[in-house]
Amino acid sequence: MARVMVLGGGLIGCGWAAAFAGAGHDTWVVDPDPATAERLAGVWEAARPVMAALGSLREGSEAPRHALRAEDAPAPELVQEALPEDLGLKHRVLADLERRIGASVPVASSSSGFTPGAIAEGMAHPERLFIAHPCNPPYLMPTVELVGQETTPDQMLADAEALYAGMGKTVLRMAKPMQGHLVNRLQFALWREAVHLVASGAATLADVERAVSEGLAPRWCLMGPGGVFHLSGGASGMAGYLAALGPATEAMWRDLGAPALDEATGRALEQQMSAADPRPVAEIAAARDQALPEVMRAVAEIRSNSHGEGGRQ
Amino acid sequence: MARVMVLGGGLIGCGWAAAFAGAGHDTWVVDPDPATAERLAGVWEAARPVMAALGSLREGSEAPRHALRAEDAPAPELVQEALPEDLGLKHRVLADLERRIGASVPVASSSSGFTPGAIAEGMAHPERLFIAHPCNPPYLMPTVELVGQETTPDQMLADAEALYAGMGKTVLRMAKPMQGHLVNRLQFALWREAVHLVASGAATLADVERAVSEGLAPRWCLMGPGGVFHLSGGASGMAGYLAALGPATEAMWRDLGAPALDEATGRALEQQMSAADPRPVAEIAAARDQALPEVMRAVAEIRSNSHGEGGRQ
Repeated sequence: MARVMVLGGGLIGCGWAAAFAGAGHDTWVVDPDPATAERLAGVWEAARPVMAALGSLREGSEAPRHALRAEDAPAPELVQEALPEDLGLKHRVLADLERRIGASVPVASSSSGFTPGAIAEGMAHPERLFIAHPCNPPYLMPTVELVGQETTPDQMLADAEALYAGMGKTVLRMAKPMQGHLVNRLQFALWREAVHLVASGAATLADVERAVSEGLAPRWCLMGPGGVFHLSGGASGMAGYLAALGPATEAMWRDLGAPALDEATGRALEQQMSAADPRPVAEIAAARDQALPEVMRAVAEIRSNSHGEGGRQ
Repeated sequence: MARVMVLGGGLIGCGWAAAFAGAGHDTWVVDPDPATAERLAGVWEAARPVMAALGSLREGSEAPRHALRAEDAPAPELVQEALPEDLGLKHRVLADLERRIGASVPVASSSSGFTPGAIAEGMAHPERLFIAHPCNPPYLMPTVELVGQETTPDQMLADAEALYAGMGKTVLRMAKPMQGHLVNRLQFALWREAVHLVASGAATLADVERAVSEGLAPRWCLMGPGGVFHLSGGASGMAGYLAALGPATEAMWRDLGAPALDEATGRALEQQMSAADPRPVAEIAAARDQALPEVMRAVAEIRSNSHGEGGRQ
């Protein structure tokens, strides 16, 4: 088990802390705001039953602790930066941190918006800064996107991958930084066409929602888009798909939309979202928080029952 | 219950026939190929346990039957066209069919590639032709995409919607024809970015697959992309998201890729797909066929337990 320092006690920082602590790591959240301790305790309380349901709560794991300053916490073996997305702030806090930790301690940034190079600028040991981006909340969502710099030691990334994987996370490696990493790029690609369908008046948002949640998502729980097209190609799989449907795929891509989020489109999205699901946002969120771990657990069980030895998917 | 004539006894036609028959409709498949009867019986055998697992197999439902010619089947109340995607063939068969059925019998085309107007060209009563596109296999996948022509009577579309909904289908309405309808457009939009990530060397297909199946799909089972962004906007929902993240969304969209399916990309997809899941295609397909109804059933149960009265999602 490692000693982990989470820098920043906001929603992501506290969520990360719960994930680390629940997995048995000795976890400290550093944040100058005294109210952090209470917030952290609240997230920990919310996270524990979720992790228990997912099977990712280690027996005897202890609550994460809060420190006002880095020097009040024990020397970390991993720093997880979860500061607000403000590059100047990140630079200041990391410069100060480097004076208090060993030169080879890895620093993982949770940033969704900045490249690791931009965040590492001005650091005394910039090569130790890499991205480890969670989906929110980190104690529930399994993916962690890992993006190093060219100078980051392979071993450091491999160690980080092993640590997150040991927490039950699905580590996704990127060979180079890209805006939005993997998960968000894929999500925004689908969302763009969803908005196009609504903006062009071809379909209601309610029907777009059902096309995704009933038509696409259950199959995608079992295999990604590659697997879907692999199976559409008959016995020769992906090669068969490319030969038979490659040109049709490119024609389809050319026909996809590139909508703007202008006022009329925004209004349509707002109105149609309320029509599709009129419940208060908090009620929808609560239903999701209850149901999502159940879906993840059910899917994991079905996958592990149905898979031969060969399949990762 | 209706008397349904399925035109064409290929994979989609036999799959449709199983879905109609399983729901209790008196179902006839018209196909000049004498081997159709055996194929139909095989699909019916495969479909019954799947529909039973989904709760969509009506007790006492009878096997669909085969007729070599339309005049050998009883007069239909609905025709489901499931011929090969060959416009000339569709025109010839539909012209012949119209001489044998009443003038107001609705004709639903399963076409994924042609507009209803193009298919109806030359028909004596073209207004009765509309698209009702299933996902494959129709007895398993819940969505049916319904696209009429401007001349198609509203009541005819409403009746068709009620009939499919009565079979447990999720009917998605399109206000105008678009290449790929809803489900495929959304699927191809995500697939385009997946291919871009692989083609640009940013990530392996295996990690893209896991980003979708573990990072995105479980949440999408509970809500579509609209719901995801609705919840990201705090208490004001979609409006809050648009105000806070509208410009960032448009910037993300501008950064998405537009890959070509050239030889190098095709090779990368083939090799990386084999690496991601080395099992024979037939084995992957068999595992999916076993697991998908289970996922759909589990998700439906979780959704119905977690939803308040107000939510459709």
